[in-house]
Amino acid sequence: MRLLVGSVSGKRAVFAVDGDKAVNLTEAVTGIGDDLAALIADPSLLEQAQEKARELARGAKGVAVSDITPALPVSAPPTIICLGLNYTDHIKEGGYEIPDYPALFMRGQQSIMAAGQPMVRPGCSDHLDYEAELMVIIGKGGRHISEAQALEHVFGYTVFNDGSVRDYQRKTHQWTPGKNFDATGAIGPFVVTPEDLPEGASGLKIESRVGAEILQSSNTGNMIWSVAQTIATISEYTTLQPGDHIAMGTPPGVGHAKKPRPRWLKPGETVEIEIEGIGICASPVVDEAEIGREAAE
Amino acid sequence: MRLLVGSVSGKRAVFAVDGDKAVNLTEAVTGIGDDLAALIADPSLLEQAQEKARELARGAKGVAVSDITPALPVSAPPTIICLGLNYTDHIKEGGYEIPDYPALFMRGQQSIMAAGQPMVRPGCSDHLDYEAELMVIIGKGGRHISEAQALEHVFGYTVFNDGSVRDYQRKTHQWTPGKNFDATGAIGPFVVTPEDLPEGASGLKIESRVGAEILQSSNTGNMIWSVAQTIATISEYTTLQPGDHIAMGTPPGVGHAKKPRPRWLKPGETVEIEIEGIGICASPVVDEAEIGREAAE
Repeated sequence: MRLLVGSVSGKRAVFAVDGDKAVNLTEAVTGIGDDLAALIADPSLLEQAQEKARELARGAKGVAVSDITPALPVSAPPTIICLGLNYTDHIKEGGYEIPDYPALFMRGQQSIMAAGQPMVRPGCSDHLDYEAELMVIIGKGGRHISEAQALEHVFGYTVFNDGSVRDYQRKTHQWTPGKNFDATGAIGPFVVTPEDLPEGASGLKIESRVGAEILQSSNTGNMIWSVAQTIATISEYTTLQPGDHIAMGTPPGVGHAKKPRPRWLKPGETVEIEIEGIGICASPVVDEAEIGREAAE
Repeated sequence: MRLLVGSVSGKRAVFAVDGDKAVNLTEAVTGIGDDLAALIADPSLLEQAQEKARELARGAKGVAVSDITPALPVSAPPTIICLGLNYTDHIKEGGYEIPDYPALFMRGQQSIMAAGQPMVRPGCSDHLDYEAELMVIIGKGGRHISEAQALEHVFGYTVFNDGSVRDYQRKTHQWTPGKNFDATGAIGPFVVTPEDLPEGASGLKIESRVGAEILQSSNTGNMIWSVAQTIATISEYTTLQPGDHIAMGTPPGVGHAKKPRPRWLKPGETVEIEIEGIGICASPVVDEAEIGREAAE
């Protein structure tokens, strides 16, 4: 099932999508709420949602997907855990050694926004960079999850742009500041449940682009740590919660490593991340000063 | 004002404390709720709470502080940001260079627990370490907060034990796993509002102990980055939210740097962190297997 959280005429709802049509699950399924949190918590709602999706596929009336303004799939993810180095060639371009354990960091809720929303280049830096990533949304939580059972804990997969302010990422050895600028991490818009994708969302083409310029192009099959291995590794130290997000790291081609000079994102550009079978996460880049100006008007 | 969130006879409430007595603010102040979130969000509640605290100081009847089982001051802090290296001698003992920007990392909610609750040594490691830290709780949120105005954004100060599993902290250059084991970071129990402490909670003795063994002993005046500088630095990249927690880093004397051999915490020990004028955060260390056994019985 392909899910989309978003607004039509200013009213937020959960939709099931079939092609360019969508059915409003918030109206059709009692208790589903207006983001994915309830659906993640209660599998019985999922069955009802799937029935509505099937009706849509059989020709039931729906709204146009293009009329829906995407919102965050989960409005307040309890935790957002990110893998830093998960594609061999990206590790080399960053000057890092290939580690025997994933480099893990966290993003806070202020740093994320929905697909389609402005990606804000801060006033203090012009080193704003893109990172195409597969994002896992945890369904059933747990601790000490084995690799063999890990995929049973996945609610779905979405697209993530792990927007990074590179000079702040490397102020010290800890990457937190450069990975946590307000409104730099774009999520969505579509969440695809596991039965509609290859196991562990492996083998999918992943790309980032600005217009016709292809910036990154790889395949999720090139990840060093699979989704299952990553869930097992993280749940060794923490109890994963329903709705937690795990970003799976980015392939080579990021802006700071481009030759002969870095390729930073500039206001006015729209950066797109696409993962085969999931969708496109597009973010217009705006200058922080511009956002302030609009807010003040 | 000295605040304490905790339970009496299983019922959680917010208390104002005077010496060994406390007044139940949850019963006395409409809308205050059962943790500090409402009080942080609404300064008008603070005035009513202060009036109740003054009545207690003037001799009004209260409950014994010793009858209160501490809970987390804020049940679900939106973000927990930690400084890694903020005392010169601790930086040297860890083998790091003194940086010109604070090393910042994040902890998730699963990793924290109230003072008095078990600090869990995980089954996968016996390298469990203590870190005595001043913890700042943000009151008024904001972005681009100047150092001059930063202390106006502090709701209060509490005690933190930034419990760390050292071998997992150093699996890679990113410290996240070792800083995020379930139930390793103890917070509280008392939250002291700024008017009852020196400016920026500077100049306070800070210690960690197991029984009569003093493990760390320093002064918050030795911090490289002050509370005001830290708030300004963090708010350059993120919008601080009411209730966010900032841990201010630890002085020298941590277990992994002890000579001639590391001094890890062991099940059966109780580790205490004390900050002058704020209080003592005591945590009994238990083995993860023991916790599981109790839960299964």
